[in-house]
Amino acid sequence: MSAYEELMGWARETQALAQVAGRLGWDQETVMPRGAAAQRAEEMGAMEAVLHARRTDPRVGDWLAGAEAPDAAGKAQLRLIRREYERAIKVPGDLAAALARLTSRAQGVWAEARAAGDMAGFAPVLAEIVALKREEAAALTGGSDTGLYDALLDDYEPGASAAQLQAIFDEMRPRLVALRAQALNGADAPEVSGTFDEAAQMALSRELAERFGYDLTRGRIDKAVHPFSSGSGDDVRITTRTVPDDPFNCLYSTIHEVGHACYEQGIDSAYHLTPVGQGVSMGVHESQSRIYENQLGRSRAFCEFLYGRMRDAFGEIGVDGPEAFYAAVNRLHRGYIRTEADEVQYNLHVMLRFDLERALIAGDLAVSDLEAAWNDRFEADFGYPVKGAASGVLQDVHWSVGLFGYFPTYALGNVYAGCLHAALRREVPDLETHLANGNPAPAIEWLHQAVQRHGGLYQPQELIARACGGETPGAEPLMAYLEDKFGALYPG
Amino acid sequence: MSAYEELMGWARETQALAQVAGRLGWDQETVMPRGAAAQRAEEMGAMEAVLHARRTDPRVGDWLAGAEAPDAAGKAQLRLIRREYERAIKVPGDLAAALARLTSRAQGVWAEARAAGDMAGFAPVLAEIVALKREEAAALTGGSDTGLYDALLDDYEPGASAAQLQAIFDEMRPRLVALRAQALNGADAPEVSGTFDEAAQMALSRELAERFGYDLTRGRIDKAVHPFSSGSGDDVRITTRTVPDDPFNCLYSTIHEVGHACYEQGIDSAYHLTPVGQGVSMGVHESQSRIYENQLGRSRAFCEFLYGRMRDAFGEIGVDGPEAFYAAVNRLHRGYIRTEADEVQYNLHVMLRFDLERALIAGDLAVSDLEAAWNDRFEADFGYPVKGAASGVLQDVHWSVGLFGYFPTYALGNVYAGCLHAALRREVPDLETHLANGNPAPAIEWLHQAVQRHGGLYQPQELIARACGGETPGAEPLMAYLEDKFGALYPG
Repeated sequence: MSAYEELMGWARETQALAQVAGRLGWDQETVMPRGAAAQRAEEMGAMEAVLHARRTDPRVGDWLAGAEAPDAAGKAQLRLIRREYERAIKVPGDLAAALARLTSRAQGVWAEARAAGDMAGFAPVLAEIVALKREEAAALTGGSDTGLYDALLDDYEPGASAAQLQAIFDEMRPRLVALRAQALNGADAPEVSGTFDEAAQMALSRELAERFGYDLTRGRIDKAVHPFSSGSGDDVRITTRTVPDDPFNCLYSTIHEVGHACYEQGIDSAYHLTPVGQGVSMGVHESQSRIYENQLGRSRAFCEFLYGRMRDAFGEIGVDGPEAFYAAVNRLHRGYIRTEADEVQYNLHVMLRFDLERALIAGDLAVSDLEAAWNDRFEADFGYPVKGAASGVLQDVHWSVGLFGYFPTYALGNVYAGCLHAALRREVPDLETHLANGNPAPAIEWLHQAVQRHGGLYQPQELIARACGGETPGAEPLMAYLEDKFGALYPG
Repeated sequence: MSAYEELMGWARETQALAQVAGRLGWDQETVMPRGAAAQRAEEMGAMEAVLHARRTDPRVGDWLAGAEAPDAAGKAQLRLIRREYERAIKVPGDLAAALARLTSRAQGVWAEARAAGDMAGFAPVLAEIVALKREEAAALTGGSDTGLYDALLDDYEPGASAAQLQAIFDEMRPRLVALRAQALNGADAPEVSGTFDEAAQMALSRELAERFGYDLTRGRIDKAVHPFSSGSGDDVRITTRTVPDDPFNCLYSTIHEVGHACYEQGIDSAYHLTPVGQGVSMGVHESQSRIYENQLGRSRAFCEFLYGRMRDAFGEIGVDGPEAFYAAVNRLHRGYIRTEADEVQYNLHVMLRFDLERALIAGDLAVSDLEAAWNDRFEADFGYPVKGAASGVLQDVHWSVGLFGYFPTYALGNVYAGCLHAALRREVPDLETHLANGNPAPAIEWLHQAVQRHGGLYQPQELIARACGGETPGAEPLMAYLEDKFGALYPG
């Protein structure tokens, strides 16, 4: 066997093991008996140890030195393997282990502090996490103090930099603040009300999942506390949740996760169980989930269709006609929670976190000053004060698990979705008619060809640019879409 | 760290990984999307490769050479680790891989041959399996041609030998043949009939599982094609199945699997995720499932209770009173299938397979002569001819997956259950009253103390002997129980 073949054999087995570890996570959130938690932590730890040993296996360095890619896909495989290997060997094993232990403990501490609404309970452990993440970032930059945040960001969005994101977000922020103010100063939008049987919510969810192209012979839908998508290739599972008086929570969580799942299911099967056979970045992943959920699922045309199906499923739903239903689906309200935010305010939530976590990693903000900084920034952007730490600085799990550099990919996903949506409208001119018939298939097929099937073949921004006729991804298409849509819904 | 501590750390991680592989098997049989099968085979193969590499890791030999056990449990740990390591390194890696590939392919071949009812479709691949199993056995005996079958048997029932089992079975076989003939020559026993809603079967199953001590906070019940129990420690899951017109299939499958699951759940938690923290042998495992299912679950007293619950759940069930119900539960019929057999005929099925597979491994029987040998033996023991290969020689999956030496542990489990039951009746004299109230707890508690909590601390036969006041396990208690019970049910 050639070095390339040996390396790919190793990569395939590593991917298969990573899928197993992922399935264990799915199991834990859906079907695991609650008394199994402690044992599961040990099982997961053992899998992580196996994966860590493989990722830092010195043979990978030898194979990489001698491997010659047979084609373009092979070159992409080598690029991805080299990238992950070089990141893995730069971080000392002791540091990786210390971070794993610390963040495992920190999740419990965070959950308790959030329940108590008291940042003081979480601050000490968060300070430890920030210190270790700074060490990790310094290991990745080779000891340099500059570019620490970029080094972390690169794990989730290869090729992106904080400066580039900052430029995009600087363009968006004032326009989003203005749009938010215009909407929330106007009249209240309609709201749905009624009786939303949970089994009927799940049945409609399943129908929507299939309409949006989710292949249930290679996936399944379960309930979990937090909706997520998990797995790749031929076993991609999603979860959703039901809230008795809020059917949109279930339906749009499902469509969102179906976007993630269709991306993984849609990657060329020749790449399955290889590095190229995975979604290429968090930003591109989020672009798929968000375009399914928002630009398609919350469009006027699709809402027209969904209104009929909601009436079939639930009878009287408290809104009069498809136009009022569309307004209810896209209703803005004075909220505090990122995951409950609408299309306009969501990005403001993300930018707030991006700026704060960059300052933490740069050493420009102390954890002891974090809550005050959060509260100031929130009031500046949202126009009303935070009502407490639980719905403020403590609302997200991310920092407690060491995810620094992850947040901006949510907003970047929206930016990519905006670009893709503009291209999609050009490429599929009769899309409205299809959506009004409850048929997103032509849009899905375009996304499949333009984005999903390629997996990790191209770099994220290159992928989006190719899909959009060569344009470098920027904020304008998203902002034009939002201002158009919400300007009409909330004329002020 | 001492060599013992290092070894135990390794053993613990290995156990955790084995649990993960087991959970993957559970997933495959219960919740996996059907389109994921091919990918799953690769994932499973990658896990097996990890486990195989660990089991043959030369460091284990070094640690074993230097390890000193701190106590009796530690000595048992070392005994079990040494045993598994020595078996693992004796089998050449190429042979183990060839067997894995062959049996993976053979399962599909067997399933097709069974569907077609044609042994000729399965015979060639079975001949290959027998040849490789003989090679494996020879590797285990160090090249000797004698004791081949014992070497395979030892994997499932440490300390047992074919000669010893033969002596036990020789005592049982004529008495079972006579009992079977007496029963089937007599009048037909009553049968239940009615409408057995499948959700109600599952609900009653769940109730019975809890009555029999299954801890659902550390387990769960799902449906699968074949009932099984999986996992150990704090995550032990069972499956059952429903057949619309046969409620006993579901209920007694559940009680049987609960016996397996309670054994694993009941092992001293100090041993969790260690070699001692698993059921000690297949025979002892089966003794627990069978005593739960038969000596307790199919007892006259428990049937009295169950009759009432069946009437509650299903209304009219076609039998008149608890005595007729007890007879229906313990009905013998002219069957062909081991897994559907009653307490009397089950052991005859097992002995048939034991004798045939021993002859195959010894080289005294060619695969080409297997079907004829099966049919002759079946008619001799059961009194009527086999009606075809699908319900004859092709009925069991075992040989296609390379399980030679496994079958006799089923009958040995019954023998152990007979011994334990005799001791239990002495130790818990008012058991009948509890069972008639639907409360097997005093029996379960005795089994927990006498057998389950010890895990792999003692050798299988030593464990059973200790539980039974020192008596070496033999056939007499089981045979006395069966002749007493079925002699009364079928006075002839």
